[in-house]
Amino acid sequence: MLRLSPPGFERLFQSPVLSATFGGGEANVAISLAHFGLHSCYVTRLPAHAIGEGAMRTLRGEGVDTSYVVRGGDRVGIYFAETGASQRASTVVYDRAHSAISEMAADAVDWSAVMSGAAWFHVTGITPALGDNAAAATCAAIRAAKAAGARVSVDLNFRKKLWSESRAQRTMKPLMRDVDVVIANEEDLQSVLGIAVAGADVTGGALDASGYRAAAERVTRVLWDASSRTLHQSQRYVVRLVDRIGGGDSFAAGFIYASLDGRPPDAALRFAVAASALKQTIYGDFNRVTVAEVEALAHGDVSGRVQR
Amino acid sequence: MLRLSPPGFERLFQSPVLSATFGGGEANVAISLAHFGLHSCYVTRLPAHAIGEGAMRTLRGEGVDTSYVVRGGDRVGIYFAETGASQRASTVVYDRAHSAISEMAADAVDWSAVMSGAAWFHVTGITPALGDNAAAATCAAIRAAKAAGARVSVDLNFRKKLWSESRAQRTMKPLMRDVDVVIANEEDLQSVLGIAVAGADVTGGALDASGYRAAAERVTRVLWDASSRTLHQSQRYVVRLVDRIGGGDSFAAGFIYASLDGRPPDAALRFAVAASALKQTIYGDFNRVTVAEVEALAHGDVSGRVQR
Amino acid sequence: MLRLSPPGFERLFQSPVLSATFGGGEANVAISLAHFGLHSCYVTRLPAHAIGEGAMRTLRGEGVDTSYVVRGGDRVGIYFAETGASQRASTVVYDRAHSAISEMAADAVDWSAVMSGAAWFHVTGITPALGDNAAAATCAAIRAAKAAGARVSVDLNFRKKLWSESRAQRTMKPLMRDVDVVIANEEDLQSVLGIAVAGADVTGGALDASGYRAAAERVTRVLWDASSRTLHQSQRYVVRLVDRIGGGDSFAAGFIYASLDGRPPDAALRFAVAASALKQTIYGDFNRVTVAEVEALAHGDVSGRVQR
Amino acid sequence: MLRLSPPGFERLFQSPVLSATFGGGEANVAISLAHFGLHSCYVTRLPAHAIGEGAMRTLRGEGVDTSYVVRGGDRVGIYFAETGASQRASTVVYDRAHSAISEMAADAVDWSAVMSGAAWFHVTGITPALGDNAAAATCAAIRAAKAAGARVSVDLNFRKKLWSESRAQRTMKPLMRDVDVVIANEEDLQSVLGIAVAGADVTGGALDASGYRAAAERVTRVLWDASSRTLHQSQRYVVRLVDRIGGGDSFAAGFIYASLDGRPPDAALRFAVAASALKQTIYGDFNRVTVAEVEALAHGDVSGRVQR
Amino acid sequence: MLRLSPPGFERLFQSPVLSATFGGGEANVAISLAHFGLHSCYVTRLPAHAIGEGAMRTLRGEGVDTSYVVRGGDRVGIYFAETGASQRASTVVYDRAHSAISEMAADAVDWSAVMSGAAWFHVTGITPALGDNAAAATCAAIRAAKAAGARVSVDLNFRKKLWSESRAQRTMKPLMRDVDVVIANEEDLQSVLGIAVAGADVTGGALDASGYRAAAERVTRVLWDASSRTLHQSQRYVVRLVDRIGGGDSFAAGFIYASLDGRPPDAALRFAVAASALKQTIYGDFNRVTVAEVEALAHGDVSGRVQR
Amino acid sequence: MLRLSPPGFERLFQSPVLSATFGGGEANVAISLAHFGLHSCYVTRLPAHAIGEGAMRTLRGEGVDTSYVVRGGDRVGIYFAETGASQRASTVVYDRAHSAISEMAADAVDWSAVMSGAAWFHVTGITPALGDNAAAATCAAIRAAKAAGARVSVDLNFRKKLWSESRAQRTMKPLMRDVDVVIANEEDLQSVLGIAVAGADVTGGALDASGYRAAAERVTRVLWDASSRTLHQSQRYVVRLVDRIGGGDSFAAGFIYASLDGRPPDAALRFAVAASALKQTIYGDFNRVTVAEVEALAHGDVSGRVQR
Repeated sequence: MLRLSPPGFERLFQSPVLSATFGGGEANVAISLAHFGLHSCYVTRLPAHAIGEGAMRTLRGEGVDTSYVVRGGDRVGIYFAETGASQRASTVVYDRAHSAISEMAADAVDWSAVMSGAAWFHVTGITPALGDNAAAATCAAIRAAKAAGARVSVDLNFRKKLWSESRAQRTMKPLMRDVDVVIANEEDLQSVLGIAVAGADVTGGALDASGYRAAAERVTRVLWDASSRTLHQSQRYVVRLVDRIGGGDSFAAGFIYASLDGRPPDAALRFAVAASALKQTIYGDFNRVTVAEVEALAHGDVSGRVQR
Repeated sequence: MLRLSPPGFERLFQSPVLSATFGGGEANVAISLAHFGLHSCYVTRLPAHAIGEGAMRTLRGEGVDTSYVVRGGDRVGIYFAETGASQRASTVVYDRAHSAISEMAADAVDWSAVMSGAAWFHVTGITPALGDNAAAATCAAIRAAKAAGARVSVDLNFRKKLWSESRAQRTMKPLMRDVDVVIANEEDLQSVLGIAVAGADVTGGALDASGYRAAAERVTRVLWDASSRTLHQSQRYVVRLVDRIGGGDSFAAGFIYASLDGRPPDAALRFAVAASALKQTIYGDFNRVTVAEVEALAHGDVSGRVQR
Repeated sequence: MLRLSPPGFERLFQSPVLSATFGGGEANVAISLAHFGLHSCYVTRLPAHAIGEGAMRTLRGEGVDTSYVVRGGDRVGIYFAETGASQRASTVVYDRAHSAISEMAADAVDWSAVMSGAAWFHVTGITPALGDNAAAATCAAIRAAKAAGARVSVDLNFRKKLWSESRAQRTMKPLMRDVDVVIANEEDLQSVLGIAVAGADVTGGALDASGYRAAAERVTRVLWDASSRTLHQSQRYVVRLVDRIGGGDSFAAGFIYASLDGRPPDAALRFAVAASALKQTIYGDFNRVTVAEVEALAHGDVSGRVQR
Repeated sequence: MLRLSPPGFERLFQSPVLSATFGGGEANVAISLAHFGLHSCYVTRLPAHAIGEGAMRTLRGEGVDTSYVVRGGDRVGIYFAETGASQRASTVVYDRAHSAISEMAADAVDWSAVMSGAAWFHVTGITPALGDNAAAATCAAIRAAKAAGARVSVDLNFRKKLWSESRAQRTMKPLMRDVDVVIANEEDLQSVLGIAVAGADVTGGALDASGYRAAAERVTRVLWDASSRTLHQSQRYVVRLVDRIGGGDSFAAGFIYASLDGRPPDAALRFAVAASALKQTIYGDFNRVTVAEVEALAHGDVSGRVQR
Repeated sequence: MLRLSPPGFERLFQSPVLSATFGGGEANVAISLAHFGLHSCYVTRLPAHAIGEGAMRTLRGEGVDTSYVVRGGDRVGIYFAETGASQRASTVVYDRAHSAISEMAADAVDWSAVMSGAAWFHVTGITPALGDNAAAATCAAIRAAKAAGARVSVDLNFRKKLWSESRAQRTMKPLMRDVDVVIANEEDLQSVLGIAVAGADVTGGALDASGYRAAAERVTRVLWDASSRTLHQSQRYVVRLVDRIGGGDSFAAGFIYASLDGRPPDAALRFAVAASALKQTIYGDFNRVTVAEVEALAHGDVSGRVQR
Repeated sequence: MLRLSPPGFERLFQSPVLSATFGGGEANVAISLAHFGLHSCYVTRLPAHAIGEGAMRTLRGEGVDTSYVVRGGDRVGIYFAETGASQRASTVVYDRAHSAISEMAADAVDWSAVMSGAAWFHVTGITPALGDNAAAATCAAIRAAKAAGARVSVDLNFRKKLWSESRAQRTMKPLMRDVDVVIANEEDLQSVLGIAVAGADVTGGALDASGYRAAAERVTRVLWDASSRTLHQSQRYVVRLVDRIGGGDSFAAGFIYASLDGRPPDAALRFAVAASALKQTIYGDFNRVTVAEVEALAHGDVSGRVQR
């Protein structure tokens, strides 16, 4: 998607200028993985015009393999994002109906070719929410990934403006069978998988870790095997936010990288949380950090001295 | 529409910044007339969200009466505009399908209330091209304008990406009956009204004035009465272009202002051409000039000395 | 006034660029009320040139009724404002002597026409400090407001560079008779009304609430009726400041809106404080927030999650 | 003066940003001379606050000796300048009444100390137009310059918004006795010295050189000695203007530099015209060029090849 | 190289901001060819730090194959480029001594692997001028290209600050044996190949085409076969320059593309000149245009109408 | 040095723009002292081209005496600095090999002329680390300062990328004999002077003050006389960092100013710490604050109210 944001902490159209970058769940994960040094391939559909070309240039520049991107359709989805400050929340206005990807036929991509040799496939719950075509494509992609021996992760990311809970559950529950790792917050679990999280009071700011764990045990094999308790005991960072958007995607990318690197779940979690914290100090959707930078934070260097 | 342009003469996404302004045929005319000091009322449909609100703020700020704007719909149409330079033409990528105005019901506006007391109604050929709803609304508006005793002008503005010539002719020809002033270039005449202009070779840069006049005589009563020859004898400006977009709208606004001011057609034409020339020295869709500034140019001050 | 500020946290002329916006006590209140959806009319005097026109465009754009603005005079007052950071305070250099409003004759405005139908009139102590003309105009305006049945609020805002305490008291005390709501900090009370606030030690950062309440009881009827204790028990926000200027005006606008909406004083205070907190997260003088956004904060949503 | 200009070719307040630089007749000349490598001393009065300090920083940075600048007063004069394009003229709105310099007492400066050792003194007709104090100071300065053996030049620069022709003539004519070089356009000659220039039709763009020469002979000894015909035969540049303001001051500085360098009038004129042409390709009031760059143009290198 | 330029037409450090892009002879050609849709591979040496990484990101983003880039060395060469305007020439200050590429061993690249399957190899005379290592690498590369059956082009680009004419001739003349296409201006021919061009008077602006042709016949076989006369009869564009730098590289890329596309020399020349003209309307080193855009200009559409 | 930084909190080349300012240890101290109102003279070597000229302009503009700057050499050292945020540290990439200063002969400066009348000489440990020439120059400068009766301070500032500990100690230890004040953190003491600081754990964030004191006693006479305990009991500020770079230089300048002003060590320390805190709220290397602003903070005004 094309992301349009006013400068700094301004509200939309306070000045006649927008920062124009590209982003979106799976793209953010792909780019983060490329920055971590992995071969990362992103599949989507983009129009042949200058806006689609701009998205291609960004993906390629950040090191992502774009050879399976399908060219076609009329528009790139857009979202207008205001960066909040302090008590003022960040806000997003979506304008993504009729985007090229939402209208892509499920068989427009040769999924078995894409997945051949892949170690991991990641998708978010936003993609199947875009429409029947996109849901069918998601389904085909997961199946092909599984067949190719790749591990599969899904970030549930429930978006109530895109679909209802019942439609989400009807679509997503059957997919879970082939999914190895589920990333979710307490709202996602409830809305997309129908799993209640005891003690969740989101607007209050405090989450009851125990309730979360109970829910987590039911859906994430990986985390359970590694003792889900580590989820809630991972390090915590008080981040002075520069840009909140993409924090979840950075977590996913961190977790995928560390898992592929053979680290145990608690170490993967620590890496993922540090990656996510760093992302939130960087403007834009992308987590422009190296493995070394994430490691430094995960291992506790908080002196803040200038790195010369 | 929301207009998104890269800075200066850059190509799209050359830097991660877009100038974000608002514009579009009829809005440009309304704003130009407000800058000329007339009471100018603009009717459209805009969503209730931050992008629609930004459009409202711009219209109000430039002095346009927005009390008849209908709020609703999902999106504001967008166009991406690159400013060309020298041999490189300006280019526009439209993303305006499904805009709020294109989905407005014809009876969403109380046209007779809008037109009550109006002296002039202006519309472009782009609006009816947006779809059946918009075409019906255009038709209703013109009828109400006529009933209220207002003069009616149409800028044909044929857009081949929006509709075919045959659909354009089927829609527009019946409307011509109630139209007092038609503004058009030679392509518009051919495409929208089916009137061939002898000797027109657009890409060659030179227009055969006589062929144009022959065509003009058939469609513009006003200009005929004023002796259409003046059309081709109006002053000509070699403009070092800052921004070409909106030049036609500024011509229309200039002609409307001067006509309402009671000036004869040749004087109105001179005023309109000067207004259009000034617009092209100003960034953005809007003609940010006063009547005094247009008069100064129309009366021949080209010394270029700093006005202190 | 025209506000000129260096970008971000820079000091003046650190780079050759200034952010140019408009602002000033009463204008900020009027604009905030317009954003809250009220019909809000602002009266001032502005020169006919491009700087005055820029101020008009801003006021209109933000939704304020400018039909009673008097055009004339030579200059728009200017203030140069540096945004502080952390231990470095924000600083303001004023250049507003001889502004159009300071030289406006008291009878240049038909105050009874302005006030006809008005529900509330708000003015700050800065306006009468600008000179004898402005003081006379303030007096006439308050009298007309009272006569029209409007409630009257004054934000004392003592500015020691504009007048002495004795001149302030001589001018302001007689006006108090017709004032329903007084907004002030402890310095204002002392300087403008001669009321000592026990325990106030401004530079130390901590205010003794009890001393403040004792003073408040003597001047603000409204708050007294509602039990002034709520003043000091209102919620408190630790705001990461983006722009401190206009915080007091946003408080005033919040209080006026909530009062006109029929809310009791403690609820009005809660709304006003939340409004003021949000303002300080927004660049510029204006509080660009809706009632819904203020309500969300006043009712305690501090999760900070992105609003999608 | 503080110069505030919108970015590029925008009109004032089209975006909420102003370029903030410093400039003004004599300062521009002083800075140009410093860039040419001469010891250049500028005398004025500037307030002690941040705006005055900004002006000081600029003058020092550009290499001007500021040791005789008097600190005091309330404000730095301001002018708002829009850069025109093509048929749209550049416009300036002045806000310089009550500036520190306009209120400086004539004896605030020890003129004989300033002039001791000076080779040339330059002043414009704008300074004495600022008021009686400034006129007296100008008079004292010229007298001291003459006494110190310096040559004296005056750029007439008539500003009709500052004073009438009769007041200008009453003030300026007596000063002419001590002036060695007068720089003027045909309007200045008429307004300030009462000398009519035959054939001058400014708005038409074409000047009748012969009429100009006749006038020139009466006032400029220097040019007459050098045969004023060279004035009209100097090279001419078709400049694609970046910024017209300061062109006259650059001419003055070029003429002063070349004269002090011992070049004959026609060579000085050629250098001055080339300097002025280069200035108009540079944004801001100052002529940021070296002697070598002016020479290159004056000697005819127009290949435009990149200088590597 | 990293290119650092002040904004717009400013001089260096006029404001505290530099546009930071990447560029340089062969990179510009590679990127232009990628934009034309060819598989384009660029070989250089770049440090492993953030500046080297930035260069990599740009190359990849613009579609260039970077798989043969060697990582190592301490610095990326830098050049500071001011964009001239009108009579003021563009100027460049180089800071490229000790760049990573200048210190690359000739055998750091497996040239036969690089050239395997290549259809064309292009290099400029700047590379061998960087030092003995770079000259040896250039030599090895050309030999490998020839061995692989690729055509070889050299843009002479004499830089007198990098080497003397005698050193240039000693290095370059032996290479010519394996070169199919030489691109040069009259100075390059003289300095690098010792071929005098009769009638060349560069600073005067006018080139004697016949003298040029005589020289051209001796060095460019390709052009001779195609009758060198077409060189001087190619279309000419009066370009309002946005950025002159990279014009020669765009010409080279245009000629290479068209030649590889099988077009005869005169058509290739027409395409190359049109490509070069378009480049000069685009900011930065790169020619951000498609084949279709070049064709449109080469075939004569100069109407300048907005492309919608 | 030329400092190139991406805008705000961006990473390098995230957008194609760099903030271009000048800075570097001793220059920062000289400029801070000039802002405090002292006569401050900076000695270095700068090339004669536009980049060297830009550095000169900055130094002069900030009020530093540049009359002893030697002009020559090829390049100005460059450093690329990213501003960190929260857990992400600021990072610096140096590109300063072969800078003009690093290649300056020790006798290029007439040190006894420079030091004549000087009250204080300050240098950092970075300068001698640049190479043998620079080390010899440092040595000569210190000797001349001592001979002229000036006090001498050295900020050790160990840079491991410039030299080894053993080379640093071999160079710096002999210089210490003539040094009155040493400024250092615990790493500098260890690396440059070989003095171990007990309990220092830098990356952990907490420093054991007692270990630091023990080390301090051995090297800083001045602080010992004043009871070094005050070092660790000085006020502490929790600064929301805008720009960390230059904090140490601001401390040095604050300490020098206060010492020259005759204040006792504990007061000098308090002033220095307050100065350093303010610096970190200001973008760029320079501490753009006055004595009055530092005093206000040192004396405890933390109300944060807008200074009007």
